[in-house]
Amino acid sequence: MKVFITGGGGFLGYRLARKLLERGTLTGPDGQAGRIESITVFDTAFPPGTDPRLKVVKGDVSAPGAIAAAMDRDTTSVFHLAAVVSGGAEADFDLGYRVNLDGTRALLEHCRSLARPPRLVFASSVAAFGGDLPNVLDDSTTPNPQTSYGTQKVIGEYLVTDFTRKGYIDGRSLRLPTIVVRPGKPNAAASSFASGIMREPLNGQLSECPVDPAETGVWLLSPGKVVDAFIHAHELASSAWGVNRVVNLPGITVSVRDMLATLGRVAGEGVAARVKYTPDARIQAIVRTWPINFRTERALAMGFRPDPDFESVIRAYIADEGIKVS
Amino acid sequence: MKVFITGGGGFLGYRLARKLLERGTLTGPDGQAGRIESITVFDTAFPPGTDPRLKVVKGDVSAPGAIAAAMDRDTTSVFHLAAVVSGGAEADFDLGYRVNLDGTRALLEHCRSLARPPRLVFASSVAAFGGDLPNVLDDSTTPNPQTSYGTQKVIGEYLVTDFTRKGYIDGRSLRLPTIVVRPGKPNAAASSFASGIMREPLNGQLSECPVDPAETGVWLLSPGKVVDAFIHAHELASSAWGVNRVVNLPGITVSVRDMLATLGRVAGEGVAARVKYTPDARIQAIVRTWPINFRTERALAMGFRPDPDFESVIRAYIADEGIKVS
Repeated sequence: MKVFITGGGGFLGYRLARKLLERGTLTGPDGQAGRIESITVFDTAFPPGTDPRLKVVKGDVSAPGAIAAAMDRDTTSVFHLAAVVSGGAEADFDLGYRVNLDGTRALLEHCRSLARPPRLVFASSVAAFGGDLPNVLDDSTTPNPQTSYGTQKVIGEYLVTDFTRKGYIDGRSLRLPTIVVRPGKPNAAASSFASGIMREPLNGQLSECPVDPAETGVWLLSPGKVVDAFIHAHELASSAWGVNRVVNLPGITVSVRDMLATLGRVAGEGVAARVKYTPDARIQAIVRTWPINFRTERALAMGFRPDPDFESVIRAYIADEGIKVS
Repeated sequence: MKVFITGGGGFLGYRLARKLLERGTLTGPDGQAGRIESITVFDTAFPPGTDPRLKVVKGDVSAPGAIAAAMDRDTTSVFHLAAVVSGGAEADFDLGYRVNLDGTRALLEHCRSLARPPRLVFASSVAAFGGDLPNVLDDSTTPNPQTSYGTQKVIGEYLVTDFTRKGYIDGRSLRLPTIVVRPGKPNAAASSFASGIMREPLNGQLSECPVDPAETGVWLLSPGKVVDAFIHAHELASSAWGVNRVVNLPGITVSVRDMLATLGRVAGEGVAARVKYTPDARIQAIVRTWPINFRTERALAMGFRPDPDFESVIRAYIADEGIKVS
């Protein structure tokens, strides 16, 4: 198996790469666990000290020829995570379409030209949903995104499905909940706060929460569980997907207030007190369009799993980062 | 008002242009009927003797700069009908994406650069639907197209919605039923037979029906009604659409067998006997993915109207074409 990860220098892509290194095998079309020969991580930037067992290629998915130059022709497995995030795509319309639409299309076109159709897992998003929504979304809810990012993700899903139907790839799209807790720094994603209000206080720093804690809920999944989901999505047989190549991943619904209360319970009230509510109308406007209550029967039937509760999400982050809590 | 029609040399686009010439006015953003100053018809080919009151521009929507060169900067109204049809987009994957996706995007990008955001009506299609479908589709049914044409139409809808949300255009997408009876010659659309089995016999010619008359139904709308729908879609206030810029047009469901029986009743059994069932697996496979039973409550509430019955569809065609039936 030869694996290619776009966004492989980003937090999730790099974590996926390390998890695949640790496993050493990946199940492909024959239903058997095959040895992973190589993992190429493709991104515009990488963490310092990138694992030397990874093939590192610096590039932009939307740059002409960049993917073609980076991807081995016998690549079996593609994970497409590269994207301009929600806030960024909303602020720069052209950039969002160039990377999130043109980049995805360029990747799919290159996959089409490979020796054999690769399995491809596409990271879509809960931002696919918006507009007039039911109280509880399910597998039949029609995406009506109210951001350009969400629009680009939905278009990507349709491209993945059509390229799959034509036999050019064997694609699978996962609509990711908000991923919490992300380590590192805040980014331009409108959802960045959801990690920031956990991460910064645990690092002894103050954090500003741009959305109303009482009125805002988050549909979330931990980094560990989403990496598991990427791998599970790859390993499922093609027949498990059928003609519907998109699935809403399971998550848990937590209010920001409950997130902060759980943080206080796990790490101490003094830690939770480092978060201050500082309203940001732009972020509020985007986050307000994201639904938070889902029934994800199809994903559960396919074997995808959410976190058991928010406390375990925080505890996993603390363990991953080696943070000491008193 | 300055009107621009892509696909304006095609049957529906040209009929729309003539209807607008006849009306002389079109209602725009101020809610008042405004005088139509000019109508530009843009297409790769035009009927002979094109009406001299139309500005005729020959071009390909996906050719760089073609739309920019053709469209006046104070265009108020765009009707986007140009497309590679379903059978053509399925046979030539690259051509379909170039015209139906890149062409649509180029058009929207140019509209974004105009002096003022134009109203834009996009001709989408019932081919948006496919895969595992309910017996009766409604406004909440999620598109899962099983053709590249359908995929490109759905992607076009999402682009129209996002460009609208950003204020670059005031867009509206209509999912057209199969349009019956089209005059002229058969085309590469998989639905071409649905007109052919009426048109050819009425012209005294034999016709081959590629699908099983007993098992195949068609969700259809007449050319006159769809032109009315384009104009109505343009004239509706922006608030009538809200955040959902796509609507399934109302149609009527008729089996091929009943279409032929109605033809026999209206034009004589000898005319209907000119149709011979000649199975075509490729056409069958595409047509089978199209649903035929719909509840179109939203469209009806918005004032869109179907044909009253199939007999009136045939009679309208006979009257339009000046055909003599005994």
